[in-house]
Amino acid sequence: MRYVVGIDLGGTNIVAGTVAEDGSEMLGLVSEPTISEQGADAVLGRIVKLARASMAAARGKEIGGVGIGSPGPLDTKTGIVLLTPNLGWTNFPLRDRLAGALNLPATLDNDANCAIFGEWWRGAARGAQHVVGLTIGTGIGGGIVLDGEIYRGASDIAGEIGHMTIDLNGRRCKCGNYGCLEAYASGPAIAARAVEGVEAGAETALPQYVNGDLRKITAQLVYEAAHDGDDFALEVVKDTSKFLGAGVASIINIFNPQVVVICGGVTLAGERLFGPLRSEVKRRAFKPAVDVCRIVPGELTGTAGVYGAAAVFIKHTWGHL
Amino acid sequence: MRYVVGIDLGGTNIVAGTVAEDGSEMLGLVSEPTISEQGADAVLGRIVKLARASMAAARGKEIGGVGIGSPGPLDTKTGIVLLTPNLGWTNFPLRDRLAGALNLPATLDNDANCAIFGEWWRGAARGAQHVVGLTIGTGIGGGIVLDGEIYRGASDIAGEIGHMTIDLNGRRCKCGNYGCLEAYASGPAIAARAVEGVEAGAETALPQYVNGDLRKITAQLVYEAAHDGDDFALEVVKDTSKFLGAGVASIINIFNPQVVVICGGVTLAGERLFGPLRSEVKRRAFKPAVDVCRIVPGELTGTAGVYGAAAVFIKHTWGHL
Repeated sequence: MRYVVGIDLGGTNIVAGTVAEDGSEMLGLVSEPTISEQGADAVLGRIVKLARASMAAARGKEIGGVGIGSPGPLDTKTGIVLLTPNLGWTNFPLRDRLAGALNLPATLDNDANCAIFGEWWRGAARGAQHVVGLTIGTGIGGGIVLDGEIYRGASDIAGEIGHMTIDLNGRRCKCGNYGCLEAYASGPAIAARAVEGVEAGAETALPQYVNGDLRKITAQLVYEAAHDGDDFALEVVKDTSKFLGAGVASIINIFNPQVVVICGGVTLAGERLFGPLRSEVKRRAFKPAVDVCRIVPGELTGTAGVYGAAAVFIKHTWGHL
Repeated sequence: MRYVVGIDLGGTNIVAGTVAEDGSEMLGLVSEPTISEQGADAVLGRIVKLARASMAAARGKEIGGVGIGSPGPLDTKTGIVLLTPNLGWTNFPLRDRLAGALNLPATLDNDANCAIFGEWWRGAARGAQHVVGLTIGTGIGGGIVLDGEIYRGASDIAGEIGHMTIDLNGRRCKCGNYGCLEAYASGPAIAARAVEGVEAGAETALPQYVNGDLRKITAQLVYEAAHDGDDFALEVVKDTSKFLGAGVASIINIFNPQVVVICGGVTLAGERLFGPLRSEVKRRAFKPAVDVCRIVPGELTGTAGVYGAAAVFIKHTWGHL
């Protein structure tokens, strides 16, 4: 049994783990803050350090390679990260720099693709033929897995589900478009809607959670307050499920998948989110498509991207999964 | 060289043609009104009559089978049309009834899938690896062709691009959802927007085209008036390109295709529609995805569905195209 180092490079944290070729175990799960403002070389150094730490924890195992998932856009064929606003990189040859430093063959793919591929391989969408997934965090990423392969499109851009327009005259999105799903249901968008409500005089205990400093309101705090029974926070979560529901309904009408898997912090809201989300989708999408589709939270919290990055390497280099 | 009868069954017309196995020619193109109110048996009779007329025109050619495209939802495996509001059918075994009447093997697929598959095989999207298409008429259908195969999803529903939400609180759609692309950019939706404008006092010559009977305003009439330089009609066409642009931008962000092909009467509007549509998409979608994607009108006006229905048969039965 060979092992592969999987790395999930995010804007906030880097996570690495050493994954068995058959996905049966992950050894040496390690993590560090990305600190992107120190520049690409420093971040690469941290990635390499983490990969070595993970391999050390898997001592005695044969390591066959390394797979990394990174924010994009990127070119999977050349292994170059073209542009990542969050990291401040342009045309960074991440795959080959990593391969050189570790003296191992390497693959590069989009972070959201890796997360959804991980959920398909070992998580909530295991084995399904048609899978569409969302990763909800600072932004909303997406991944499409068809017949066990990541669908990448003509130029590795495919799967930007977060930049599907749900309201063509709606909120401006960071991508330049208007009314993208991301502009309503990403972590910061959820927080922003909560702050808007507080400022408009909503009755809520949210300000007390942050000692009156509204800038400290986060999506996670909104879920906590909802969990504590705060009516306004519950309303913000419910609105989130409506926005997500409109997006997921479109996805179901277009892809007719067996599974829609939703990953990221938003899953902390649990059934408070998923219950109304499923109702909203049922109200909107075609019944024969809704009937065959499970809408589920990701199972591999914090490790989906690591599993997926390793899986991309195994599939691409060894031809199986 | 074998030949296949392709049939495009629509709510208004039935079209049939006899297509060479390599797509190099179509013989005996014939058409008749559907007259669905006469019931399924009468419509089937007309389909069979048209197929025979087409084969008669292709006298001397070896006919290997028949492919039919029908409104759905339907089951491609059993060949049963599950439900078509436009035709008033429920669980009609169209494929086997047709095969029995003609004594030929037959295949059944969704009409929009067939049209886009036809455009991929012999038309505007010829040979492209990732193709998404829209058929704009009474409704908005869609088809997805990936690696030369129709993408059907888990239960043959996939590709309902017209029922992607572009305004989650918007117009009610016939499907029950709100703000579907179809509710803004289908033929009847274009006509309805024009009538609303006239009733709201827009300065336009449109009422003169219909002797004041606003119920007679159709999308085609709006294109004609736009062609004649009517400012309000031009505005209606431009709005249509904005709605379509929001939908096509989402499709490009999600599928990153080489070609988006748009079929149906709306293509009569020509560059008046496609110019602003391309601008709107450019304004909205990810540049590296826009840069690799052509947005084009279908080339096989009136015959895309016939070519595609034949192509489904050839691909499914003989395994090549």
